[in-house]
Amino acid sequence: MKRVDYKAILKEMRGTSVERPNKTGAGTLSGHAAGEPFEKSVYQHLKKKYPAAVFKQFEYLNDLYLKHPKVISVKDRYALLDSPTALLLLNRGDKATREWSPENIFEEKQNDTADILYHADGFYDLIDVKTRNINKNAQPPNIISAYKLAKACANMIDNEEYDNIGINYIEIDWVEEGDRLLCTDSHYGDLFKAMPNTLYINWAAAMQIQFHVADLNQSWQGTRKEWAVEYIKMFVESAKHRVRKMEETYITPFLKYI
Amino acid sequence: MKRVDYKAILKEMRGTSVERPNKTGAGTLSGHAAGEPFEKSVYQHLKKKYPAAVFKQFEYLNDLYLKHPKVISVKDRYALLDSPTALLLLNRGDKATREWSPENIFEEKQNDTADILYHADGFYDLIDVKTRNINKNAQPPNIISAYKLAKACANMIDNEEYDNIGINYIEIDWVEEGDRLLCTDSHYGDLFKAMPNTLYINWAAAMQIQFHVADLNQSWQGTRKEWAVEYIKMFVESAKHRVRKMEETYITPFLKYI
Repeated sequence: MKRVDYKAILKEMRGTSVERPNKTGAGTLSGHAAGEPFEKSVYQHLKKKYPAAVFKQFEYLNDLYLKHPKVISVKDRYALLDSPTALLLLNRGDKATREWSPENIFEEKQNDTADILYHADGFYDLIDVKTRNINKNAQPPNIISAYKLAKACANMIDNEEYDNIGINYIEIDWVEEGDRLLCTDSHYGDLFKAMPNTLYINWAAAMQIQFHVADLNQSWQGTRKEWAVEYIKMFVESAKHRVRKMEETYITPFLKYI
Repeated sequence: MKRVDYKAILKEMRGTSVERPNKTGAGTLSGHAAGEPFEKSVYQHLKKKYPAAVFKQFEYLNDLYLKHPKVISVKDRYALLDSPTALLLLNRGDKATREWSPENIFEEKQNDTADILYHADGFYDLIDVKTRNINKNAQPPNIISAYKLAKACANMIDNEEYDNIGINYIEIDWVEEGDRLLCTDSHYGDLFKAMPNTLYINWAAAMQIQFHVADLNQSWQGTRKEWAVEYIKMFVESAKHRVRKMEETYITPFLKYI
């Protein structure tokens, strides 16, 4: 079965450079926008390697709906994806899907689950590119909604669908070099190889799981089904902990004033 | 008692323009960075009008500590602010305050409460500038942590300190015009004139209160003490609602899998 060769991509990226996206001296480079050219660059490398299998997430949906012009209802469009879990992770909302037409196709959205989708032999590999200015001591980036991932795990269990979904991350480390950004290192992480209880959920930051890809634990040895159950356990424990903390911090101390 | 003349500032800003911060064609202008030049511009206008009273928040603390070189402990430095509520809203953390020295002064931080501080006659006016690309239909911006504001209200009540703190917002509406951004309109809002129960807390976005300044309710008629109590009531209700929602959404539906 064909899969993305992450090692090869990491190697290809190292030492490459991209144009810096803002004016030199126009302030520090940080946040999502700074590394965006590297996201595009990784996509181009992957597309060149796997032209028939690699898409932007929104491109994949556009292609799919364009290929089936007679499929119009939301339900039927959703059914075009042959995996309920892929559907959950990839689809746009009901309204956007209903309003989709060849004249009103999807555009890129920042809260799409993945930057890039690899789809071949019935396997959906969701690939996200995280870029990192290694001269800044930045917080770990948002990876994926912990709730969306919990729903995906529940879906896998409900549909006994364990082998056709991958969620993988590429980290591009860069430094400023005059007018360009230089990739000094690159890393790869498989979400489903991380021990679920090592994942950190930032409830106050849109329930995002946060980590630097380079630091992602990769020691999980169990099956995907066991992973899904372990993850849901961790998610529920974390939610309970957050609820208790909210009560202690945001409710109890203020009751005496009201 | 001297106060900031907001009407005059709003009028001065309208029709002014600033250099656009990124290259034309280098992508859309959005987020915090886009309107930053207008933030600076409002500060410059205020500083010119009230040179002895207007500071950046971090500048104010730097000046205060530089003026009292023999005050070194965290506790004593905090005591330099004569208002417990101003202290809560303006100070940096214990660690940063301990490590402050003339050789290691504070720099601007994005999560400072205010962009600008007006301090005169014992009155602390915290002023934040929100900039808005009126050709984008953007979500209301983060205004202030609902929790920080709840603590400030509790502080006001504990210290019976109701008349020496203001929290005010200026909105600069702008459009792109070639190489420049043009201010087409400006708005002002007094947080303590908003009916507390009209304020929206986005718990998943770092508990931020979010609104467009132009849309801020300004119909509160009661005293500041009543406002503080009303706000805390709203905050606690909102926290309880969030806790119930978390239990219903993130815990109960997943219990059957574990």
